[in-house]
Amino acid sequence: GFAKVDTHRPLRTGEPEVVYGAGKTVDQVLSITARLRQAHPEHPILVTRASDETRAALRSTSEPVTEDPLAAIVAIGALPTPNLGTVAVLCAGTSDLPVATEAAFTARAFGLSVVEISDVGVAGLHRLLAARETLATADCVIVVAGMDGALPSAVGGLVAVPLIAVPTSVGYGAAFGGLAPLLTMLNSCAPGVSVVNIDNGFGAAVCAARIVRTKGALT
Amino acid sequence: GFAKVDTHRPLRTGEPEVVYGAGKTVDQVLSITARLRQAHPEHPILVTRASDETRAALRSTSEPVTEDPLAAIVAIGALPTPNLGTVAVLCAGTSDLPVATEAAFTARAFGLSVVEISDVGVAGLHRLLAARETLATADCVIVVAGMDGALPSAVGGLVAVPLIAVPTSVGYGAAFGGLAPLLTMLNSCAPGVSVVNIDNGFGAAVCAARIVRTKGALT
Amino acid sequence: GFAKVDTHRPLRTGEPEVVYGAGKTVDQVLSITARLRQAHPEHPILVTRASDETRAALRSTSEPVTEDPLAAIVAIGALPTPNLGTVAVLCAGTSDLPVATEAAFTARAFGLSVVEISDVGVAGLHRLLAARETLATADCVIVVAGMDGALPSAVGGLVAVPLIAVPTSVGYGAAFGGLAPLLTMLNSCAPGVSVVNIDNGFGAAVCAARIVRTKGALT
Amino acid sequence: GFAKVDTHRPLRTGEPEVVYGAGKTVDQVLSITARLRQAHPEHPILVTRASDETRAALRSTSEPVTEDPLAAIVAIGALPTPNLGTVAVLCAGTSDLPVATEAAFTARAFGLSVVEISDVGVAGLHRLLAARETLATADCVIVVAGMDGALPSAVGGLVAVPLIAVPTSVGYGAAFGGLAPLLTMLNSCAPGVSVVNIDNGFGAAVCAARIVRTKGALT
Amino acid sequence: GFAKVDTHRPLRTGEPEVVYGAGKTVDQVLSITARLRQAHPEHPILVTRASDETRAALRSTSEPVTEDPLAAIVAIGALPTPNLGTVAVLCAGTSDLPVATEAAFTARAFGLSVVEISDVGVAGLHRLLAARETLATADCVIVVAGMDGALPSAVGGLVAVPLIAVPTSVGYGAAFGGLAPLLTMLNSCAPGVSVVNIDNGFGAAVCAARIVRTKGALT
Amino acid sequence: GFAKVDTHRPLRTGEPEVVYGAGKTVDQVLSITARLRQAHPEHPILVTRASDETRAALRSTSEPVTEDPLAAIVAIGALPTPNLGTVAVLCAGTSDLPVATEAAFTARAFGLSVVEISDVGVAGLHRLLAARETLATADCVIVVAGMDGALPSAVGGLVAVPLIAVPTSVGYGAAFGGLAPLLTMLNSCAPGVSVVNIDNGFGAAVCAARIVRTKGALT
Amino acid sequence: GFAKVDTHRPLRTGEPEVVYGAGKTVDQVLSITARLRQAHPEHPILVTRASDETRAALRSTSEPVTEDPLAAIVAIGALPTPNLGTVAVLCAGTSDLPVATEAAFTARAFGLSVVEISDVGVAGLHRLLAARETLATADCVIVVAGMDGALPSAVGGLVAVPLIAVPTSVGYGAAFGGLAPLLTMLNSCAPGVSVVNIDNGFGAAVCAARIVRTKGALT
Amino acid sequence: GFAKVDTHRPLRTGEPEVVYGAGKTVDQVLSITARLRQAHPEHPILVTRASDETRAALRSTSEPVTEDPLAAIVAIGALPTPNLGTVAVLCAGTSDLPVATEAAFTARAFGLSVVEISDVGVAGLHRLLAARETLATADCVIVVAGMDGALPSAVGGLVAVPLIAVPTSVGYGAAFGGLAPLLTMLNSCAPGVSVVNIDNGFGAAVCAARIVRTKGALT
Ligand SMILES: Nc1ncnc2c1ncn2[C@@H]1O[C@H](COP(=O)(O)O)[C@@H](O)[C@H]1O
Ligand SMILES: Nc1ncnc2c1ncn2[C@@H]1O[C@H](COP(=O)(O)O)[C@@H](O)[C@H]1O
Ligand SMILES: Nc1ncnc2c1ncn2[C@@H]1O[C@H](COP(=O)(O)O)[C@@H](O)[C@H]1O
Ligand SMILES: Nc1ncnc2c1ncn2[C@@H]1O[C@H](COP(=O)(O)O)[C@@H](O)[C@H]1O
Ligand SMILES: [Mg+2]
Ligand SMILES: [Mg+2]
Ligand SMILES: [Mg+2]
Ligand SMILES: [Mg+2]
Ligand SMILES: [Mg+2]
Ligand SMILES: [Mg+2]
Ligand SMILES: [Mg+2]
Ligand SMILES: [Mg+2]
Repeated sequence: GFAKVDTHRPLRTGEPEVVYGAGKTVDQVLSITARLRQAHPEHPILVTRASDETRAALRSTSEPVTEDPLAAIVAIGALPTPNLGTVAVLCAGTSDLPVATEAAFTARAFGLSVVEISDVGVAGLHRLLAARETLATADCVIVVAGMDGALPSAVGGLVAVPLIAVPTSVGYGAAFGGLAPLLTMLNSCAPGVSVVNIDNGFGAAVCAARIVRTKGALT
Repeated sequence: GFAKVDTHRPLRTGEPEVVYGAGKTVDQVLSITARLRQAHPEHPILVTRASDETRAALRSTSEPVTEDPLAAIVAIGALPTPNLGTVAVLCAGTSDLPVATEAAFTARAFGLSVVEISDVGVAGLHRLLAARETLATADCVIVVAGMDGALPSAVGGLVAVPLIAVPTSVGYGAAFGGLAPLLTMLNSCAPGVSVVNIDNGFGAAVCAARIVRTKGALT
Repeated sequence: GFAKVDTHRPLRTGEPEVVYGAGKTVDQVLSITARLRQAHPEHPILVTRASDETRAALRSTSEPVTEDPLAAIVAIGALPTPNLGTVAVLCAGTSDLPVATEAAFTARAFGLSVVEISDVGVAGLHRLLAARETLATADCVIVVAGMDGALPSAVGGLVAVPLIAVPTSVGYGAAFGGLAPLLTMLNSCAPGVSVVNIDNGFGAAVCAARIVRTKGALT
Repeated sequence: GFAKVDTHRPLRTGEPEVVYGAGKTVDQVLSITARLRQAHPEHPILVTRASDETRAALRSTSEPVTEDPLAAIVAIGALPTPNLGTVAVLCAGTSDLPVATEAAFTARAFGLSVVEISDVGVAGLHRLLAARETLATADCVIVVAGMDGALPSAVGGLVAVPLIAVPTSVGYGAAFGGLAPLLTMLNSCAPGVSVVNIDNGFGAAVCAARIVRTKGALT
Repeated sequence: GFAKVDTHRPLRTGEPEVVYGAGKTVDQVLSITARLRQAHPEHPILVTRASDETRAALRSTSEPVTEDPLAAIVAIGALPTPNLGTVAVLCAGTSDLPVATEAAFTARAFGLSVVEISDVGVAGLHRLLAARETLATADCVIVVAGMDGALPSAVGGLVAVPLIAVPTSVGYGAAFGGLAPLLTMLNSCAPGVSVVNIDNGFGAAVCAARIVRTKGALT
Repeated sequence: GFAKVDTHRPLRTGEPEVVYGAGKTVDQVLSITARLRQAHPEHPILVTRASDETRAALRSTSEPVTEDPLAAIVAIGALPTPNLGTVAVLCAGTSDLPVATEAAFTARAFGLSVVEISDVGVAGLHRLLAARETLATADCVIVVAGMDGALPSAVGGLVAVPLIAVPTSVGYGAAFGGLAPLLTMLNSCAPGVSVVNIDNGFGAAVCAARIVRTKGALT
Repeated sequence: GFAKVDTHRPLRTGEPEVVYGAGKTVDQVLSITARLRQAHPEHPILVTRASDETRAALRSTSEPVTEDPLAAIVAIGALPTPNLGTVAVLCAGTSDLPVATEAAFTARAFGLSVVEISDVGVAGLHRLLAARETLATADCVIVVAGMDGALPSAVGGLVAVPLIAVPTSVGYGAAFGGLAPLLTMLNSCAPGVSVVNIDNGFGAAVCAARIVRTKGALT
Repeated sequence: GFAKVDTHRPLRTGEPEVVYGAGKTVDQVLSITARLRQAHPEHPILVTRASDETRAALRSTSEPVTEDPLAAIVAIGALPTPNLGTVAVLCAGTSDLPVATEAAFTARAFGLSVVEISDVGVAGLHRLLAARETLATADCVIVVAGMDGALPSAVGGLVAVPLIAVPTSVGYGAAFGGLAPLLTMLNSCAPGVSVVNIDNGFGAAVCAARIVRTKGALT
C-alpha cells in the first residue's frame, strides 16, 4: 500500500501515529485513520492540517468526531478525561491563535488539562504579569509567538517548569515566514526554553504530553 | 556595577543564574561567582565556556571546584547527590563530545543521574539499537549531533520520554556552522523532539532538569 | 526555431534528450517530441512535469503513451524490457511519493527494474530494517525524503551499492522548501551518498541508469 | 589626497564628520583628525573603533583627549557641557557593554546627558521594571541587546519617547553574528522602535542626538 | 475574549493601540475598534492593512471615518488638527507610494503636518536637490525606497533632523522581497539613519510622531 | 571508550571506516587506526584531513604508510593493485587540486585506477575538449570545481558514465565558501550529475568506488 | 503629480526614461508615456513588464506601437534604424526566451542590430561551438541563463568583447528563484563578465547600448 | 604539470591569462609567470592578490616589475602607453581604496588612461557633483563601494557611458561581507549598471578594457 501505518507506535513512544493531513487526499486520510482506529480503539486518532473536505468526510463516518476549524484539526474517537496534569498555552497576539489552538487541541486529545492565555505580547507586560498566578498552576508551558518572538524569553524568567516555544509565520517583511521568531527563540536568554518548528503547535503539544505524562508515570 | 546579579532566580525558576564565561574577564567571573555563592550557598555555581585562565583562577580560591576541560565547564561548591531521575545523553560522533559533555556535566550539577552513550550515529544503526535497553531507563533524553543531525529522528521513534535535540557546529562546507543539523532537528519526522541552539549543551540540560525535577515535584 | 533539439545526445551520453514540460506550451512539447521520436525511434521519449493538457494532447496522437499522473510524467513510445539491473527507490513518507514515482518511472523508461519501498522514515526504524532483504537485491539505491531528510544516512549504513539522495519540498516552516533535507543529505555521515536537486526524481534516475548500465557494459 | 574630508558637514547635518578608525593607519587617523580639528575647533572630534596604537598616538599629541578603552572610542578636544537633554542607554547583558558604551560616549560628546542601565534582560523582568522611574526621565531611549534581542520590545511598551534599538553580535550558533537580534528588533511588536546596524552604538547615538537636539532647537 | 485590548497604552506610550487588520475577520476588527473607541473617545482609532470588506464595514458604522485605499488604511473618529510639527515623507519611485502613504496617513492621524515628496530616486539627483528647501522645513524625515534603497543615504547627508528609513518590497529578483533595500539602509554611510521593517510605513510614522511630539513636550 | 569503532562496516558497506582526522588528537587517531588495522588487516586504513603531526606520528609506527601532503591524507597498510576499473578526476583550476587529490588518493586506496585531468575550466574549452579521449576511458567521472562550478555541466554533456560533482571553497566574495558552485552543480542542466558536500573529495571517491566496484561484482 | 517624469535624462545619460510597467495602473502608464513622448518625440518610449491590458490600451492610442508579447514589452513611436553596431543575445534554454527577448527588443529600440542564438546550453557544447562565427561579428554579447547559469563562463572564454550575463528565475528547488545562476555568474572564471539582476533583460540591453553607442561616438 | 597555462588566450579574448596569486606558492607563481612572459613578450603579465613574498620574489628576477602594495598587485614587463581611452575609477570611502586601486592598476596595465576620484560617498553629494566635469571625460566608469553600496546608483544617473559597479567587503554587521552592497548594486534604480564580484577590482577593469578597446577597434 501507499502507507506503512506504524501500528506499534504507542508501544514504543506512548502515542499512536498522528496523520499529517496536508497533501493527502480525502481517501488516503479515510483509509489511514480507519486502520489506526482499528489498531488503537482506546486512543482518539488525530488528523492535523485537515482540509474542509477531509473534515466533512470524517464527520460523515459513524465515528464520534471532535474538531477545531480555526486550527483545521480533528480527533476521531472519544477524547480522554484530562487527568495527567496541566499545560498552559500562551500566545502573543490574536493572529497566533490558530497555532496555539492546534497545540491546545492536541494536548487535550492526549489527556492533558489546558489553560489558554492569549494576547499577552511583551509590548504590554502588565497583561503577562497579570497571568502569573494562572501560570504557576501549570506543569509545563507552551508559548506561541510570531514577529519578534520575544514572549518565551519573558515567560522563561517567570516559571520553573519546562517551556516549549513555537514560532509562527505571523508577520511580514523581515519576519521571513517565521525565521525571525525562530531565531529569537533559539537564542532565548532565558534557560529552560526549547523550540519546535515554525507553526508546529502539534509538535509542542506532543512534547508537553510526554513531559507531563512521564511525570505521572514515574512516581 | 557592571552586572545585576539575579539572586532571586532560584525562587522564580528553580536554578541559580549560571555564568556564561565567554567574553568575561577572570575578574568579572570571580566577582560574579562570589556574589552568587554567597546568595545561594546550598547550590553549586556553574561557569560555562570558561577559559583555562578562568578555571585556574577558580581552582585557586578556597571553594571546592569540579571541572571538565573538554567542555570548558566548572562548578563551584559541592555537587548534589543525583536523586531526581535519569537523563540519557547520546551523541552521534566523537567530535560532538564537548557539547555532550557540557550537557552531562550541567545535568549532574542540577542533581540528575546521567548515562552517556557516544558515537552512535545513524550510519551504523546497530550501535543505536544496542543501546535501547539503556535508553529505556531514562526519564528524558538529550541527543547531540552535527553534520546531518539525523540521530534525534531515529532516537525519537524509540523512546516515550521527552527528547531534547542539540545541533553542533561539527562538520564543514554545507554544514554551515551547525545550520544543517539545526534545520534537520527542527523538521524531525519523529514527534516529541524539541531543539535548542547550536552547541548549547547547557541549555538542553536545563530543560532536562526541569522535566525530571517537576516530575518528582508533582507527585 | 525556438529549440535546438540535441539529437546526437544518445551517441554522447547514452540517453536521448528528455523534455522538461514545465513552462512549455502544448504545441512546443508536441513539436519537440515529434522531432525526438523521429531522431530516436528506438527510444521512448520522456516528458517530465507535463501538465494535464500536455498529457491529454500526447495521448491523442497516434503514438503509444505511458504516463503516471501522480508524477505528471509521460513516455512516448514502447517502454524497454527491464534487463539492465535493479534500482530500489525508497521514500520516507506518503507525501514524498510524487518525487519517488518520477524516479521510478524514469528508471523503468531507461530499462531498469525497479523495486519501490515507501513510507519507511527513520521515526519507525523497524519498517526500514524489515526492507533490508529487498534492499540487498538492488544494484543502486535512490532515497527520497523531505522534512528532516534523515533517511539516506540510515540507508547509507546498510548498503554497499551507490546511493543517490533526493530531497523533497515536503514539509513546512523551517523546511524552507526543501533546503533542510538538502543540507542534511549533503552532510550525510554515511559515505557513498551523493545528492541531486530538490524534487529531482528524474535526475536521480538518470544517475541510477548510468550506474547500472555502465556496470553491464564494463563486463 | 586619500580622503576628501567633509568640512561643511556641521552646516548641513549639525555634527562634524566622525572618523571610523577600523582599517585606517595611525598616520591616516592623525592626518584626518588634524584637518577636522582645524575646521571645527568648537567641536570635539570623535574616532570610533580606534586601535590601542591609534589611541596612544592621539594621546601623545598636544590636544586634550578623552577615551573609553572598552568601546575603543576617543574624543579629541574638550567635551561639551551636557545641556541638550537626556538619553537612557539600556543593555540586556554584560557582554553588550562595549556597544552600549560606544553609544553613551558618543551621546556625551554630542552634548547629551546619559543614564546607563545595564544587565536588564527580559529573563529577569523585575530588573527592567525597577528601572522605570529612571526611564521616565529620558527624552530618548537606546536599547542594546544581542542573542534574542527581546529587550526593545519590552521597553517599547513602557515608554512614550523614541526608542532606537541596537542589535549586537553577542551570542553564538543561531545568533549568526547578530542576525537573530537584528530580525527580532525589526519585527518588534512594540511601535516606535527603529533599528540601526549590528554593533552600531555610534549610529544610535547620532540618531538620539538629532532627536534631542532638534527638540531643543525647535522651540 | 480572543483579544486583550490594551486600553492603558496611551498612558504608557502616548498613543492608543493601532489595529493590524491583516488576518483579522471583519467582525474581529469591528469588535476591537468599538472597544478602543469607547476607551479613547478623544483619539482616532487606526486600522492598517484593512481589506476592502473591512473598510466598507467601518464606513457603514455611525462613526466618522477617513481612509486611504492606496495604503488600505482607515481612521475612525475625527482627525486631530496638525499642530505638533512637520514630517517630510519622501519616496524614491511611484511604486513605493502605498508605503509612503501609510506613513503620511498615520502621521496625520497622530497630529503631525506632512509634506510629501515623491519620485525623487537617486538616479535623477536634481529632483532631490530641488526639494532641499522643502526638506529644510521638516522636524523629522521619513524616506521610503525599494530596489537599491539608496535614497536615505543621499537624504541623510542633506538634513540635520532624525531620518527614519523604510525599505519596501518593490523590485524583483535580487531585491528578495525587500531584503536588498533593508540591508542598504542598515549600512547607510550617512549617520542619523535608523530603519524599520520592510513596508512598515506605519511604524516609521509612530517613530516620527514620538520624535516631533516629545520635542514639543520638552520645551 | 570515546569511540565506537564500527568494525563490521566492510561486511555491510564494502569499505572499512575511514577516520576523519580534523578535530582528533594524535593519540585518538593512533588508537582508532590501530583497532581498525587489527580488524581489517587486508584493507589499508585511511585518515583524511590529517595534520602534519598526525601524519608524522603515523609514519613513525611500524606500519607501511602512504600519504599526500597536499590533501593531508594518509593510508596505513599496503595499497591494493588497481584492478576494479578507472575513474577520471578532473578539476577546473590549480587551487582545486587539494580536493581533487583527496578524491584521487581515496579512489586508489579503494582499488581504482585514476586518471587526473587538471586545470580544464570552461573559460578555456579547448583544454576540456582535448581531454575527451582520456575521458572516454573512464567508468566514472569526478569533477571538482570552485567559484562558478560550471565544469560538471560541460563534462556532463560529453560522457555517458556517472558523474560526481564536488564543489570547492575556492573563490571569494559571492562564492560564499563554496555555496555558489554547490548551487550551480545541484542545478546542472546536464543530467546524470550528482553532488557531494563542499570540499568532500573523499565522499566523491567512495561513490566512485561503489559505482565501479559493483559494476565488476555484478557480472 | 504621482510621478516626477525625468525629461532631461537623454541629455544626461543618452536614453529617455523607460517605464517599468509592473505595479502601475493602465492610466498611470498612459499618462507617463504621453508626457515622455511629448518631451522626446525623436525617441521611441519603452514600457517593460506591461500587462495585456496596458499593451491593449497603448495599441488603441494614435501612436505607432511595436510589441513582443513573450517579453511583455512595448515601444511607442517608430523604432530607429539599427546603425550603431551589433549585440549577440544568447540563451541557454527555451525557457529563458522571455528574458532574452526583453533584451533583444530593448537593444533594437536603442538602435542596435541584434543576432539571437537560442538553446545553446553547455550540456551540448557543439551547439555553442557551432555559433562561434556568428559570435565573432558582435560588438558586445548578452548571455541569458537560468538553473546552473554556466553559459556565460563558456562564452566568456570565446569572445574578446564585453559580456553581460543575465541570470533567470528558470529552474526549481535549489535554483532559489535565480539565486543559483546569479552566484554562478558573479563568480565566473572567465574575465570580462559583468552581471545584472535576475530576469533583467532590459538592464543588460541598456548596458549593451551604452557600450556599442559610445564606441561609435568616441571616434 | 599542475597548471595548463592558456597561452592562446590573447588570440581569443584579447588579453593574456592573469595569475590569481591567492593560494599559490611563490614557486608556482614564478613558474607560471615565466611561461606566460615567454608566450607573450609583448604584454605585461599581471599577478593579483600577490603576497609580500611573491612580490619580493618577482622583484628579484631580471624582469622589470611595477607593483602597488595597497592592492597587492604586480605587473611583470613594461606597461603599455595609455592610448586606448579613459576609465574613471570612483570610490565611496577611504577603506575602498585597495579595491579601487586593483581596478586602476589593471586598467593601466591593459593600456587605458585612468582618472581616480576617491571618497565621494553619497552622504556628501557635493563631493560627487564637484567631480562631474572629470566624469564627463571618461569612456567608461568603474564605481567601488562597500557598506550601503549606494554610489553607483547616483553616478549612474549622471553619465552616459557604461558603468561597472564593484561591491566591497568594507563594513560590518549587516554588511555581511559585501552582500549588502552587492544586492544594492544589482538592484540599482539607474539603468546601465552592471556588477562584478565583491572586491573584484580586477574583473571590473577587464570589462572596462574590453569596452574601451573594442570601441577603438570598431571605428
Ligand atoms: N502538524 C504536524 N506537523 C508536524 N508533524 C506532524 C503534524 N501532524 C502529524 N505529524 C507527524 O507526521 C507523521 C505522519 O506523517 P505521514 O506518514 O506523512 O502521515 C506522524 O508520525 C506525525 O508524528
Ligand atoms: N524534471 C526535470 N528536472 C531537471 N531537468 C530536467 C527535467 N526534465 C528534463 N530535464 C532536462 O532538461 C533538459 C531540457 O531542457 P529544455 O531545453 O528546456 O527542454 C533536458 O536535457 C533534460 O536533461
Ligand atoms: N562605528 C561606526 N559605525 C558606522 N559608521 C561610522 C562609525 N564611525 C564613524 N562612522 C561614519 O563613517 C564615516 C567616515 O567614514 P570614513 O570616510 O571611512 O572615515 C563618518 O561620516 C561617520 O559618519
Ligand atoms: N574527509 C571526510 N569528509 C567527510 N566524511 C569523512 C571524511 N573522512 C572520513 N569521513 C567519515 O567520517 C566517519 C568517521 O567519523 P568519526 O567517528 O568522527 O571518525 C567515517 O565513517 C567516514 O565515513
Ligand atoms: Mg494584541
Ligand atoms: Mg564515529
Ligand atoms: Mg508515514
Ligand atoms: Mg546578566
Ligand atoms: Mg520614477
Ligand atoms: Mg587555470
Ligand atoms: Mg534545450
Ligand atoms: Mg570618507
